[in-house]
Amino acid sequence: MPKEPLLTAWEAFTKDKMEDLKWKQFNVGTGGTICLVDWMGDDFSIVEAARVSYGEGTRHTSGDRQLIRYLMRHWHSTPFEMAELKFRVRVPMDTWRQWIRHRTASVNEYSTRYSVAIDEMAATLPGEWRLQAESNRQGSDGFFDVVDGGALLSAQEAKFHKDSRALYEERLEMGVAREQARKDLPLSNYTEAYWKVNLHNLFHFLRLRMDSHAQKEIRDFAEIAGREIVAKLFPFAWEAFVDYRLEAIQLTRLEIEVVQRMMTRLLIHRTSTYTENFKEAQDPAWKGLKKCRERDECIEKLEILRILPKGSLEVLARD
Amino acid sequence: MPKEPLLTAWEAFTKDKMEDLKWKQFNVGTGGTICLVDWMGDDFSIVEAARVSYGEGTRHTSGDRQLIRYLMRHWHSTPFEMAELKFRVRVPMDTWRQWIRHRTASVNEYSTRYSVAIDEMAATLPGEWRLQAESNRQGSDGFFDVVDGGALLSAQEAKFHKDSRALYEERLEMGVAREQARKDLPLSNYTEAYWKVNLHNLFHFLRLRMDSHAQKEIRDFAEIAGREIVAKLFPFAWEAFVDYRLEAIQLTRLEIEVVQRMMTRLLIHRTSTYTENFKEAQDPAWKGLKKCRERDECIEKLEILRILPKGSLEVLARD
Amino acid sequence: MPKEPLLTAWEAFTKDKMEDLKWKQFNVGTGGTICLVDWMGDDFSIVEAARVSYGEGTRHTSGDRQLIRYLMRHWHSTPFEMAELKFRVRVPMDTWRQWIRHRTASVNEYSTRYSVAIDEMAATLPGEWRLQAESNRQGSDGFFDVVDGGALLSAQEAKFHKDSRALYEERLEMGVAREQARKDLPLSNYTEAYWKVNLHNLFHFLRLRMDSHAQKEIRDFAEIAGREIVAKLFPFAWEAFVDYRLEAIQLTRLEIEVVQRMMTRLLIHRTSTYTENFKEAQDPAWKGLKKCRERDECIEKLEILRILPKGSLEVLARD
Amino acid sequence: MPKEPLLTAWEAFTKDKMEDLKWKQFNVGTGGTICLVDWMGDDFSIVEAARVSYGEGTRHTSGDRQLIRYLMRHWHSTPFEMAELKFRVRVPMDTWRQWIRHRTASVNEYSTRYSVAIDEMAATLPGEWRLQAESNRQGSDGFFDVVDGGALLSAQEAKFHKDSRALYEERLEMGVAREQARKDLPLSNYTEAYWKVNLHNLFHFLRLRMDSHAQKEIRDFAEIAGREIVAKLFPFAWEAFVDYRLEAIQLTRLEIEVVQRMMTRLLIHRTSTYTENFKEAQDPAWKGLKKCRERDECIEKLEILRILPKGSLEVLARD
Repeated sequence: MPKEPLLTAWEAFTKDKMEDLKWKQFNVGTGGTICLVDWMGDDFSIVEAARVSYGEGTRHTSGDRQLIRYLMRHWHSTPFEMAELKFRVRVPMDTWRQWIRHRTASVNEYSTRYSVAIDEMAATLPGEWRLQAESNRQGSDGFFDVVDGGALLSAQEAKFHKDSRALYEERLEMGVAREQARKDLPLSNYTEAYWKVNLHNLFHFLRLRMDSHAQKEIRDFAEIAGREIVAKLFPFAWEAFVDYRLEAIQLTRLEIEVVQRMMTRLLIHRTSTYTENFKEAQDPAWKGLKKCRERDECIEKLEILRILPKGSLEVLARD
Repeated sequence: MPKEPLLTAWEAFTKDKMEDLKWKQFNVGTGGTICLVDWMGDDFSIVEAARVSYGEGTRHTSGDRQLIRYLMRHWHSTPFEMAELKFRVRVPMDTWRQWIRHRTASVNEYSTRYSVAIDEMAATLPGEWRLQAESNRQGSDGFFDVVDGGALLSAQEAKFHKDSRALYEERLEMGVAREQARKDLPLSNYTEAYWKVNLHNLFHFLRLRMDSHAQKEIRDFAEIAGREIVAKLFPFAWEAFVDYRLEAIQLTRLEIEVVQRMMTRLLIHRTSTYTENFKEAQDPAWKGLKKCRERDECIEKLEILRILPKGSLEVLARD
Repeated sequence: MPKEPLLTAWEAFTKDKMEDLKWKQFNVGTGGTICLVDWMGDDFSIVEAARVSYGEGTRHTSGDRQLIRYLMRHWHSTPFEMAELKFRVRVPMDTWRQWIRHRTASVNEYSTRYSVAIDEMAATLPGEWRLQAESNRQGSDGFFDVVDGGALLSAQEAKFHKDSRALYEERLEMGVAREQARKDLPLSNYTEAYWKVNLHNLFHFLRLRMDSHAQKEIRDFAEIAGREIVAKLFPFAWEAFVDYRLEAIQLTRLEIEVVQRMMTRLLIHRTSTYTENFKEAQDPAWKGLKKCRERDECIEKLEILRILPKGSLEVLARD
Repeated sequence: MPKEPLLTAWEAFTKDKMEDLKWKQFNVGTGGTICLVDWMGDDFSIVEAARVSYGEGTRHTSGDRQLIRYLMRHWHSTPFEMAELKFRVRVPMDTWRQWIRHRTASVNEYSTRYSVAIDEMAATLPGEWRLQAESNRQGSDGFFDVVDGGALLSAQEAKFHKDSRALYEERLEMGVAREQARKDLPLSNYTEAYWKVNLHNLFHFLRLRMDSHAQKEIRDFAEIAGREIVAKLFPFAWEAFVDYRLEAIQLTRLEIEVVQRMMTRLLIHRTSTYTENFKEAQDPAWKGLKKCRERDECIEKLEILRILPKGSLEVLARD
């Protein structure tokens, strides 16, 4: 298994880029950071591992980019596990609580049992306070006006951060064990960690955390990990990820049948009143329901596909 | 947290069904079997775990079936991990090699190091020999005629099975260590195992192995695990799995754009020559390519959605 | 595979015990709880799965208890994976941060994004404040006097808890999104979760968290999970776990050689001055070191084994 | 976080060694191979990740080697997860069946569904045939004489390999689908795979597979992965692994008590008849048993520790 010249060229190329990215610190929010510490593999490693499945005979039948796209499109996961990335992050404990839920990664975190806690808490600027969303119980919608609320909230926060640090330090000074003194640190306190994950699991993390429903605080980290780091180290895999995951949509059995009925009516009967068409073609179980989240999701997808015109959700809700 | 009467009723109902299913042996192929040994949880366990996320306040806002459907549709995985199933299977080693690649399960397998290998190999009936697919390198397509090939293949196989068992037993008789004597057992030799997996990971297994591209030998096991066991123990979760996974399709970024262009042309310009419409609307990168698997996949999906009529793949290939 | 009468008897016996344990709430600390929600399997399930490895021929060669002990002693892990336990816990976020680091479990946690945070924080009684250990950077050593420190610390804590809850509720009242309002909750705030884990991974958790070096807060939970729940559901496996894990010690290569040299001197040369014997027999790399944690660990083990008399650590340190 | 000069020197040094090891092919058995394809990290990466737990304050308190030894001795696992190794192996399917049971690794294997199976089976030389062990059901003990058995076994094997390949190729020629034709390949057929694993999980694999009870076929691979590759890339971690895992022994609760009783008698009562001492001091449950594997294991450990003289097992068995 001698190394091919092509491989060497590729490696040299990516190794150079790597030197630029390694330990390059990206800032996130007021005090957060993320940087790439190390990595293993590149687009070619994915291809190389996939080709072991094919044996030697098919070595040159498809281009590397096409093969990567095929693997991603058809949900092959193991070749993407062959690349590995290691990050160092500085992140509020609140965000870390979400992050750590991804179990398929290796983690070493700063220990407030062993050391005094990092002396910084995530500060929220007056213009960054978000309003509770009405429509989505677990989301936010819009921002507080700086003057009307934002400034007050930030001032209260700053005072609270100061007080809680003072309490923590007073405890330490009195001799309270670090492992116990930390119990009242606010979730906004920063922590630091090494986080190592393979590319397949990282893509899974990114799909969930770059999503518009993910909380902004973690989305900001995911955006940088994805667009500033992965996209540069694995350009082909990233492109495939965007095309086949991030910007793909899924149609459920019910939605497929709605489209089938709409298209039949549209093409055969030349129906043209879109909303009427949808109302007739919708899933039987949805008919008569005043509120139906699944129907709303369907309408949104049909709008994207231009099977329904933009604004249909409002029109149909009004009816 | 006192138990609610409803829960108890549910449990009593499912416990009864369970008694019927436990240890009920399903036959697969000539000598394979699968049976449910034990389980933990039911549809209600999924709901129960999901609701811890919501706190007490939302306890009765949505029905159990609706909540399960919501969780499945939105790719929540942890509630489905709260149910667990344990199977006992008897399966040819060849099939087991595919099965064992699913890492998120617990396994205890028959040891041919410790015991004499099971004295049975998977026999292929004369009508079961499959032809190599032309179009799909890793699939099969159609069957051998019994007279013209099938009978011969089965006879050869039977002889080979007899010979290889004889060799194995001769080695043992001579005193060769079992761990070494087994080295030439054919992959068709049966093995047995306990296989325990949570419902989320089982659904993942089923999605891959019930797929039409999965090899028939493992698909037969997956079909039974899914339709005969999971469907009965978890009726709501199974229904959601079928609607949102098994019978769903994904549209990629490229495919979404194809549909958008086709719908624009169709609705605005009243274009009606479907294949012309597709040819114009297809992804720019596909134009001019004689063979393009991604385009073929797109056409197949559009046929399902009736955006293209059945048979379009052939029509477009002919052009 | 018909069920044997013995199995049925066993199951009936354990099922009864189960009814007593299920949902029985154990209190931990001031506001923590742990209860068993469901389980799958018993000691017999471990045996049953292990025996598939042995084939039918060895079915009755060893008793169930002996087999379980053998499996544990020889680090067989898969049979213990065949049993599963599901708990519901109420635990301060600080403790949960340690708990969640065990990745091989399934978790559904209360969402403070979706719901208002639980209105309770872990209170520390005046007699429970612990002093920072001198010898062990990450431990505690002794307690504050109630009058001299403890009462003050608890009073400060109570005030802080009240203030931080007030800030949180004021934010909510002003309309701040729950996902953002929670950012300054103290780590002492309670959370709730379902936690499901197989018996093998639970034993691993217990070995680490029942250890005397584990932080008291999580050790209290582990003690109950182990001694009140696992010990009752899996009496044979628990007994083996205690004998071969919890109360076992490991001798390193260096320590083995120390013992070898000490025994040689003791038995052959009839040396009897223990500390002299150790000083001569210790690892060459330790000689001359003023402080050597590895040597101290060795001495402690030799004291346990009575190869050195109690108090040797102090005697040798003094020299 | 600027890179320290020391780190850079270290990296330069190990990078050089890496170039020598990468793709260097080690032969195992007649046709097996293993080579290192890529790696990430070195001893320093372990240290670096561990120190994030300690914060900045303790940066220089302990040497790197000492810290690695401490981490290994105290079962810290996450720092060792920070290094990653990727191998390419060529291994008989029989051995691969054991290998693949380690679930915490990433794998891409040669597909006999997609490609024609590798045309080589593991041949056993006349002097390599092993006899079934009497004492250990799952082991072997001694070799066949070449003339008396070995030559015959190898000749039979060679013929069988030829026949089974011929059958396989005949099937392919007739047009049988590859996925089905392969069903009777012997387990001795070679397969190839990329295998990627972190250092912690690799150590776990090595501890089990370098053990004297592991089957020789896989042990040969483990020995090379350990002594030829890991030992060179991670010299400090390897040394710690040998001292604290590979050459360590565990004393169970029962064994600890046996030693305690023996030492008490030895030191206080000056007992000197070793076997008498053991007989009195043994676990009460063992007394009177004619055969007791746990007692035998205890005696073997006491022999190693020289608490009992060599040969005690035989002496005690004779009594």
